[in-house]
Parts: sequence; structure tokens; C-alpha cells
Amino acid sequence: MKFIKNNLSEKLIINKYLKKLNCKNKGTFNFENDGAYLDLKNKNYKLTVTTDNISENIDFFSNDTPKSIAQKITTVNLSDIFAMGATPHSYLLNLYLPNHINENWLNSFSNQLKRIQHKYGFYLLGGDLSKSNKLIVSSTFFGFIKKKLEIFQNKFNLHDDILITGNIGESKIGLEILKKKISSNINLNQYFINKYLYPIPCKLGPLIANHVNSMKDISDGLIGDLTDMLNSKYGALINVNKIPLSFKTKKILNDKNNFRLENLLNAGDDYGLIIISSQKNRNKIFNIANKNNINIALIGKIISEKGIHFDSHLDLKNIEKFDHFS
Amino acid sequence: MKFIKNNLSEKLIINKYLKKLNCKNKGTFNFENDGAYLDLKNKNYKLTVTTDNISENIDFFSNDTPKSIAQKITTVNLSDIFAMGATPHSYLLNLYLPNHINENWLNSFSNQLKRIQHKYGFYLLGGDLSKSNKLIVSSTFFGFIKKKLEIFQNKFNLHDDILITGNIGESKIGLEILKKKISSNINLNQYFINKYLYPIPCKLGPLIANHVNSMKDISDGLIGDLTDMLNSKYGALINVNKIPLSFKTKKILNDKNNFRLENLLNAGDDYGLIIISSQKNRNKIFNIANKNNINIALIGKIISEKGIHFDSHLDLKNIEKFDHFS
Repeated sequence: MKFIKNNLSEKLIINKYLKKLNCKNKGTFNFENDGAYLDLKNKNYKLTVTTDNISENIDFFSNDTPKSIAQKITTVNLSDIFAMGATPHSYLLNLYLPNHINENWLNSFSNQLKRIQHKYGFYLLGGDLSKSNKLIVSSTFFGFIKKKLEIFQNKFNLHDDILITGNIGESKIGLEILKKKISSNINLNQYFINKYLYPIPCKLGPLIANHVNSMKDISDGLIGDLTDMLNSKYGALINVNKIPLSFKTKKILNDKNNFRLENLLNAGDDYGLIIISSQKNRNKIFNIANKNNINIALIGKIISEKGIHFDSHLDLKNIEKFDHFS
Repeated sequence: MKFIKNNLSEKLIINKYLKKLNCKNKGTFNFENDGAYLDLKNKNYKLTVTTDNISENIDFFSNDTPKSIAQKITTVNLSDIFAMGATPHSYLLNLYLPNHINENWLNSFSNQLKRIQHKYGFYLLGGDLSKSNKLIVSSTFFGFIKKKLEIFQNKFNLHDDILITGNIGESKIGLEILKKKISSNINLNQYFINKYLYPIPCKLGPLIANHVNSMKDISDGLIGDLTDMLNSKYGALINVNKIPLSFKTKKILNDKNNFRLENLLNAGDDYGLIIISSQKNRNKIFNIANKNNINIALIGKIISEKGIHFDSHLDLKNIEKFDHFS
């Protein structure tokens, strides 16, 4: 880590905008060391770790607000932490900053991080700063989970339930509106744009970790992520009518927009969870989700035929794959 | 983490070049999950964490070999882990890859990582891959240290010893040779260029962690790093003649090159350690260093006058500060 250096502006960034995010945790050395301690204290827990980044012109637009960028970098990582059944503990922040980043930007960015930290209860452990010709925000998140628990993404049994949380496709519709490929009335446009700019992770994961076989967050689209989860033994049968869509999304699909359900099945950045669990745990999982006001839907089951199968015809031929890397 | 995705070339990178680096550790899920587990097992230890990155045209030249880049990204991080008195455990790798990176590059890069992992005994826990217009390699390293130990960089007492390991300035001389600012005979040129391209971290830190008050690695130059260590209470008195220089470095200084000792005091990327410790532990530290064939030198002491003072005149006015960020 090189949060502290001789360069005045780096010191300024750290002292004025980042130090407030360490919440005075002892292991951070108040960002005056090249490293930090990460001590879980409770020996019945182990650490989970995940790392993800977002880059200008790949994962966000150059003129997106710092508030949106702070929301996205935390959501992509928190979402993985929750999908592992873990509770957030702390994080590292690696900022690659172009020259145009100013104090207003840093103020808004760090304030949003502080709000999110407060909401989920974690703190900034350290990180580093670099100059760059384009903005990249990278982060490594730490979570904790009971030692005995181990959530795989691709371990399950024949006939297991396939459930998902939240509605799919809203972030993708927001993106299409921003790209001016589809449009609706002002209110709906703004609703979907906000879904794209301010995605929220689904915190159900750690609450149901005892009752699931596999979990994964939907970051690359329902089909893409479910394909990643399917192992070489089994496939999935999906009930198309059970795929959860909001009323607002249905309105977009019903409008004259040249936009169909198929376009949403590979829509990235939803950040709901795909859960694969034994039928016998179905009620427990639904009860916990309901108690926490989290929408959950049973969309299908694990079958012996490999691949993803739908119970009604879908035309997926011309649907582009969602891929951050390409 | 998004090591596994639908993109064939990303899968290829992971399967062919990165999976071999996880050494089949269970917590890595063989890179088939979005996250990993980090379990120290021994409850008497805690984790240390540090993160650092190197960027094309800032920390290395565009045409530097993948072997050199692998050496640098591990050394900058291992050096911080050792300076915290910790032993390396595992690491995350975040690669930002431009289009020109090919399989030959990845093969050479990953093989060098494997050699270094084997040398120090750690493994790859996970990471992510992104496209980029320039090459950036970022890494987060985990180490372990006894729970009771806590190595600060800026806690020490009046009259404490100031020691450093290794020789200073060799990497900087290599850089100046590459920039064609100075030159010597072919053998010496190659010696210093290798010091720049293949820096090695000083593993003394964990061996003497019980006996020191503060430690820091020399990444930004002796003056820069020592300045960072000095707190608001005390300063340092340095015996100029005790600053360790190799015979080869002395030859460069004695040659007609317009290059003086002063140029080496802010030379970055040496990766020796600055150690501040009580005089009563001096013999213990020297004995441990000698047993491990690590050069160590007593270069000064902590005094009550703030700032860094030298016992003979140095002309530091026109010496540029070393700063990765600028």
C-alpha cells in the first residue's frame, strides 16, 4: 500500500477524503503504514475475499457521477461477499486517477462510500493511489463466515430448486435508455437510469447460507451466471413465466420498443442472487426472504439434461452475450 | 473476482496460465467461484495485508520483459509484508491487459510468478482480469504474524539505532543506465540493469520482528522513506560514511559520471529495510542478519532534533524527490 507519500496532493487525498473511511480501526494504522492488520478476533469465523474493478468506458460512462461510481464499486464486491454467504468486514481501495479528478469529485465519492459503509457495517482497511489516463476503481472486499460453512457456486443435486432474488433486467433497461436505444416517459426513464447508476446488492446471502447448496450474484446476466454455475453433471429447466419482472419492466416490454424478454436474460448488473437449494429448504428460504422484504422467486429446477432449457420457446439466437471483459 | 467468465480467451488465460498458481489450495475453489476463503488455521496468528500496483510507463518500461514485471509486482508487495514482520501467505492478482499481451507473455509471466511463489512459499488466491489500453499489474498480498506482534513504522525511542539492509542505489543506477544518462563497462551496465529489472525483497523482517521498534522497506528512497518514519517527536542523525554502497556503486561514483552519493539517497526501488531498534537489541539483530547472509549496517540514530541530519555536508538541493505518484 502506498497511501502515505511525500506528494502533497496524495497526502491531501488521504487526509481529507480517505482517512474518515477507516473509522479509526486500529489495524489500519490510520493509513500511516505500508500495510494493515486484518484480525477477525472471533476464531469461529474465517475470512472470505473477493476483488473486482470498474473502468471508465467499460463499466461506467466518463461523465457518470462519483456517487454512482462509489455505489457500483461497492455493489459489485458486496454482491460477491453476500453470494458467498458472508457478512462484510472491510475493504481495500485501489484508485487509478486521471488528472481531471478534483476535490469535488473526491468529496462526493468518499461521502457515498461512507454512507454505504455505515449501511452495511464495514470500514476501509487501506489501498493505494496511482495516476492513470483513465479512471479505474478497483477494490478487494473481506467478509466473514462461520468456519464450517462453505458455499460453492457449482455444487447441488438433481431436482434442487433454482431461485432468484429481485427483478431482472432493470439495470440493462436503464443502460439502453442512456444509450438512447429505447425510451419511455420521463418518470420511467429516470427510474431505470437510477437502477443502472445505483445498483444495490442483495443482502439475503448470509441470512440463508445454512440452507442453500450454491449461490451466485447476477452480474453477467441470468443465463451467463447460471451457465457458470451448472457443472458437468446436470442442467437447468427454467419456467419462463416465473422469471421475475417488475410492472415497469413489463410496460417497457409491452411498449413499441424493439425490446423483448430475451434481451433481459443476459442483462448484466442486476445483482440479485441465483440460489440453488434443496426443495426441503424452500419454505425456510422464502420465510427468511419475506421477513427481510426481499423478493424471491422459484424459477426452475435442476434436471439431468445438461445446459439451460426453457419451458416455452425463446429466441436467443440474436441476443448478445454480456461480457465485461470483451 | 471474475476469473471465470464466458469469454474463451479469459478462460484460456485462467486455465492455462493462472490455475497452476493456486497450488490446489481448497479456499481458491480452483478459481471457479467469485470469491475465495482465507483461513489462517492457526489461531495464534493474524493476517497482514498490503496492496500495490505497477503501471506501464510509470513503474516499468513498455518493453520490459514479463519476467521482470512478475518480479517487480511480487517484490513491491513481499517487501511490505516482510517490513511488517510477517511471512507471506497468499495473494490476489488484478491484471489490466492491453491487446498486445499474448500467450508467450503470459507463459513467461506466470512461470516467473510460480518460481517466486515456490521460493517464498505462498499461493495465488484469486484476482480479476480486465482489458485496458495500458498494462497495469496490481496485487494484494496476505501475510501472517503472531497475534501479539505489532510493527509500526513510526514508533521508536530517543537514541534508537537506525539500520538498513542491503546496498542503496543499485536499482537507480540501473535505471539511469537504461535511460542512457550514465554508463560504465558492459558487465557493470548489465549488473545494475539487472538490479533494476529484478529487485529482490529483504526477508529479514519476520526473523527480527521481536527485536525492532519500527521497520519500513526502501521503496521511495532512503530519505523519503526515513522521512515517512520520523514522527513529530524525534529526528535522525545519519553517518554518511556508514551508508552501505557496493564496490560497483563506488566505481560508478568515482567514474567521470556526473553522479554523486546525493543522487542515491532518494533512489527508489532498493527494497532493503530501514530498521529502528533499541541499542540493546543491536547484537541480536546483527547475529540474525549474519546467520542469514543479509548485509546490515548501522547508519545512524534517533536524536531529539527533528528532521534528517547528516554528519557531513551533503548537497541535497538539486536532488529530485522520488515519487511513484507524480
